[in-house]
Amino acid sequence: MGLVVQKYGGSSVADAEGIKRVAKRIVEAKRSGHQVVVVVSAMGDTTDELIDLAEQVSPMPVGREFDMLLTAGERISMALLAMAIKNLGHEAQSFTGSQAGVITDSVHNKARIIDVTPGRIRTALDEGNIAIVAGFQGVSQDKKDITTLGRGGSDTTAVALAAALDAEVCEIYTDVDGVFTADPRVVKKARKIEWISFEDMLELASSGSKVLLHRCVEYARRYNIPIHVRSSFSGLRGTWVSNEPHEAHKPHKPHEQGDQPMEQAIISGVAHDTSEAKITVVGVPDKPGEAATIFRAIADAEINLDMVVQNVSAAATGLTDISFTLPKSEGKKAIAALERTKSGIGFESLRYDDQIAKISLVGAGMKTNPGVTAGFFEALSNAGVNIELISTSEIRISVVTRADDVNEAVRAVHTAFGLDSDSDEAVVYGGTGR
Amino acid sequence: MGLVVQKYGGSSVADAEGIKRVAKRIVEAKRSGHQVVVVVSAMGDTTDELIDLAEQVSPMPVGREFDMLLTAGERISMALLAMAIKNLGHEAQSFTGSQAGVITDSVHNKARIIDVTPGRIRTALDEGNIAIVAGFQGVSQDKKDITTLGRGGSDTTAVALAAALDAEVCEIYTDVDGVFTADPRVVKKARKIEWISFEDMLELASSGSKVLLHRCVEYARRYNIPIHVRSSFSGLRGTWVSNEPHEAHKPHKPHEQGDQPMEQAIISGVAHDTSEAKITVVGVPDKPGEAATIFRAIADAEINLDMVVQNVSAAATGLTDISFTLPKSEGKKAIAALERTKSGIGFESLRYDDQIAKISLVGAGMKTNPGVTAGFFEALSNAGVNIELISTSEIRISVVTRADDVNEAVRAVHTAFGLDSDSDEAVVYGGTGR
Repeated sequence: MGLVVQKYGGSSVADAEGIKRVAKRIVEAKRSGHQVVVVVSAMGDTTDELIDLAEQVSPMPVGREFDMLLTAGERISMALLAMAIKNLGHEAQSFTGSQAGVITDSVHNKARIIDVTPGRIRTALDEGNIAIVAGFQGVSQDKKDITTLGRGGSDTTAVALAAALDAEVCEIYTDVDGVFTADPRVVKKARKIEWISFEDMLELASSGSKVLLHRCVEYARRYNIPIHVRSSFSGLRGTWVSNEPHEAHKPHKPHEQGDQPMEQAIISGVAHDTSEAKITVVGVPDKPGEAATIFRAIADAEINLDMVVQNVSAAATGLTDISFTLPKSEGKKAIAALERTKSGIGFESLRYDDQIAKISLVGAGMKTNPGVTAGFFEALSNAGVNIELISTSEIRISVVTRADDVNEAVRAVHTAFGLDSDSDEAVVYGGTGR
Repeated sequence: MGLVVQKYGGSSVADAEGIKRVAKRIVEAKRSGHQVVVVVSAMGDTTDELIDLAEQVSPMPVGREFDMLLTAGERISMALLAMAIKNLGHEAQSFTGSQAGVITDSVHNKARIIDVTPGRIRTALDEGNIAIVAGFQGVSQDKKDITTLGRGGSDTTAVALAAALDAEVCEIYTDVDGVFTADPRVVKKARKIEWISFEDMLELASSGSKVLLHRCVEYARRYNIPIHVRSSFSGLRGTWVSNEPHEAHKPHKPHEQGDQPMEQAIISGVAHDTSEAKITVVGVPDKPGEAATIFRAIADAEINLDMVVQNVSAAATGLTDISFTLPKSEGKKAIAALERTKSGIGFESLRYDDQIAKISLVGAGMKTNPGVTAGFFEALSNAGVNIELISTSEIRISVVTRADDVNEAVRAVHTAFGLDSDSDEAVVYGGTGR
């Protein structure tokens, strides 16, 4: 029995009852012989309440003091969790990010982890304690100031600690049963994925799947830390995310693996994302350097683009259109940045459209199986869904459609690729272990 | 202009409006040319809410994790206060007790300060910042664990920082205008004391005055840090507590000082305390060692006694009675401890009485002015108040009466010693500067 890192999100520790329930689960892992490190988020709405207070005293709360404020949230949940565990007769100690050795850069509100030096955690474990660590927070290397890690920070803390402590698994406890082949709120027949490769999980995460954030999966892949995403409510086996499925990660029906010819495309799931908008720069002179000027303007405004598509130039005019998608929240800033380049480039106009959705199919071996792309488009066509943009990678194909079509499109693709839970063709145990 | 330490209690920063009001006051001190260090408590009821949460997860929350939990409260208030100050155009940085260099022993929930090493505070000040420090908390010297200082911890933090930073004054902002000659809720004619010596303030604090705690005054006396107790709401001059009244501490009517013959007793005020109970051990054999056995039993139960009185033995019986007072909250524990010694000592019975009050008169030169004691008893007698126990020190005389009599007793003494605000005999500028 080795070391397990468990991470519990805010919904799992929303109140005293939740904390006691989580404490029992932690003690079970300890009783089964593991060394246990727990990473915990702030309780339920605590963070939102703190942000609300901050906005009452200052119109633009940011930086060092905002981090100092927000980190109070995990301090509360971790201390309560340690108390609840002690109350069950086990020893537990809580540690702030700083005490746990989570060293970051100095970019407040969205710091990156530079190093993890978990000496105190190791000592606590060696003395037989369960170690409870505040998620989402660290201490800056140069100034020794408290920092927060931004979105997905607690998951990233858990994976980073798992890597530094050489854990055998990082368990991410959440309020759903695992990663599904599609959003179960949209696709009733979506099914839980038993195992998925880091690569496919990365694509799902960047295509709109909310269960794990890209950043955390990327970290786990780099240090080869298996992640087990599961429910803190049910206790059921969830979804394993790892490099390759070793015995412990295999599904309960191992014959499913044998049924898969190795060269066949293995579909992991369908993701969708309605948080993006599309900007089209109309009538760009088709000369070298024009696109570069446009995207430099976007980059200088620190806006992250997602899909980028340039149409073939119309020979008659020598003009082309460039379209890209970006988070809706960045739309205003991007338009302003582009307007400033207009005179230099001489494009005709800008079109902004936030009524779009992105639908992505993710799976290994897709590129070498042309049938996948064809099947994807056929499914959308049969459902009467119009495609506006297309973008592909080695293991993903994404399209942009009207926002109104998104649910129907996701369901159609899910069914067409045999992912529905009552389909005989289901390929739940996806991935080839690349 | 030197360095000022300001401390704001929870009622001064109870909500966002309070925080903004306090921020303005801090900025005024900075604008007037001072270096400013601010010690802040948790907002309003935050600490009680955290204790309530702790009790929900564990019936006896104590120790390391309880301290980790409670310190979240100051983290919230100090970060918000720093934001509010920045919003007024001034630079501010918040620091936890640990970051501020408040080093304590390892006694969780009631740690004592061992050392203060405010290097980061000094740097922040030198860079032109206002430094905001979390009250009530520190870090243990040996284990580097977060500790809390127990009751009056934030005031003690402020005085300790003032001492370590060689501040010219420690301002304690609260929700009253200063220290009064009696509790204004009981004595309507009580008046604010302009200046009081450390010694008299210590006696008032240990006799029931709630404005400053004994611990904080003791610390200030040891390091000779003048304290200015004042209201965060009114901005008026409050009460100066110091070794001797130098120019800045003097009242606005300096002739009052000249009116006082140096050898006359200078009455500072009347304090009362209804939080104690009285235990009488009846029929103790009047032999050497019996009292020692009784008080050893009390000490072993870690109970702090206040007044102790042994009556003259009745010659006929060879038996005596021993009475003492102690906090009501310790009553049950004390009775149990005494019952266990009964067979060994052979006393007759125990009497427990929690319907008592203690009334104390505090002032310099009292011991050498027999008229004070006489006047005190006469005042009580004229008010029809019966005296049950008497105890005196160099600068204090205390009696125990029925709890029902307390308000009348305090008013009678207050008037008799010319402390009423409309009395010509008022000695507001008390103390001889010993």
